[in-house]
Amino acid sequence: MKSSLLEKNPVRTLGIDARGIRGILDALFIERQLCTVRLRETAEGVDVYVYDAGCGTAGHRRTLKEVAESLAPYVYGCGETDLAKGVGKLFLAKGRTLALAESLTGGLISDRLTDLPGSSGFFMLGAVVYSNESKTRLLGVPSSVIERWGAVSRATCLAMVEGLGQLGKFHDRVAVTGIAGPGGGTRSKPVGTVFAAVRDDASTLVKRYNFAGTRREIKESTVQAVLELLWKKLAGLQAGGNR
Amino acid sequence: MKSSLLEKNPVRTLGIDARGIRGILDALFIERQLCTVRLRETAEGVDVYVYDAGCGTAGHRRTLKEVAESLAPYVYGCGETDLAKGVGKLFLAKGRTLALAESLTGGLISDRLTDLPGSSGFFMLGAVVYSNESKTRLLGVPSSVIERWGAVSRATCLAMVEGLGQLGKFHDRVAVTGIAGPGGGTRSKPVGTVFAAVRDDASTLVKRYNFAGTRREIKESTVQAVLELLWKKLAGLQAGGNR
Repeated sequence: MKSSLLEKNPVRTLGIDARGIRGILDALFIERQLCTVRLRETAEGVDVYVYDAGCGTAGHRRTLKEVAESLAPYVYGCGETDLAKGVGKLFLAKGRTLALAESLTGGLISDRLTDLPGSSGFFMLGAVVYSNESKTRLLGVPSSVIERWGAVSRATCLAMVEGLGQLGKFHDRVAVTGIAGPGGGTRSKPVGTVFAAVRDDASTLVKRYNFAGTRREIKESTVQAVLELLWKKLAGLQAGGNR
Repeated sequence: MKSSLLEKNPVRTLGIDARGIRGILDALFIERQLCTVRLRETAEGVDVYVYDAGCGTAGHRRTLKEVAESLAPYVYGCGETDLAKGVGKLFLAKGRTLALAESLTGGLISDRLTDLPGSSGFFMLGAVVYSNESKTRLLGVPSSVIERWGAVSRATCLAMVEGLGQLGKFHDRVAVTGIAGPGGGTRSKPVGTVFAAVRDDASTLVKRYNFAGTRREIKESTVQAVLELLWKKLAGLQAGGNR
């Protein structure tokens, strides 16, 4: 039997791998065997395409709805959307606000988030603190911290996310610092070393990454990592983290 | 006689139109008639491709050099480069520093400028002041100015570029504010209304634009306009402007 694509727009997921998706959908479809799914891994997660295998027009809508519902905790959008828009919509839906401090990404996180119409409803400000002095002047990062631990360090990243609190009241704050290259790497902190911190009133999560690629690719990998952290936090896929 | 492309990378110009380029190059080549040029208008300016029309290998290098020299004041780069990189290189070459305040562009100007390796040599900070409160908190824009003239106004744009001075010493400062849409437009300030200010110690230039297109296109048009203002200023194609 020839199967046909039920809906050209995929269900876009994050935070679950292909095996996990198959496990959930197999349990859903196993008795009826009416549908097949094809999964495509993307830079942002796993896209799910649902194919009809004989359920007829009447069953289409119900099937699609069931797929989306079954995967709901992991679905950031359908079709043309991207993760930044998914994150933005989640902020708007939850009535939360965001402030960012970006070093190596140079404004790219802010740019992506503000592509969503209405993003001024949650995105309050971004501080692109490229120089050490700007980290100190805008965010109050102590010079002593930068001198002792370096501008690219867990300590500086935490001081940046902390310092955003001086600029207003926000539900969520994010800071990133890292080495986009091609210069600036060291043995202990090679090009691609990135620290990201996500903080709310209850907790602070800080993570270290080691990305590979060109300067642009390292910027984009960092954006993706931050969007994932935010999405998982807001979608409730992960506890707020610890300090 | 079949002409062949002398160099696959175009000479990329800004601040001069196709007619102006033809005028300069005709004067250069008219006596010899050894070369032809083809011009291509881009989103960033006019690209110049030089074709051999019989000058032979010996003359190639000299010809290309002459073309680049003749158009020098308008050349922001060759080949793969883009205007943001051209602007960044000019800042580095002149040893000048830059600070930005971005509203509607949401960090996109900072993002573009920091794609250049070594951009931390000139790019000091960007303030993505999306909310009114952030304009006041980060840049000291008086609430009264925003209330009276609006967040998208000449007055607010000037207060933003002025306020960057509180965050450090910079040779050049830029501020942009506008309406990216699709919502937020009014009769007197429709979607696409943008104000941009460029300021140095000597002078301040503020311009109003009316861009068309999608939200993303309006952001990108604004970036292009700002890069052009900076490039012309640094390349000396335009006086600093007036208040």
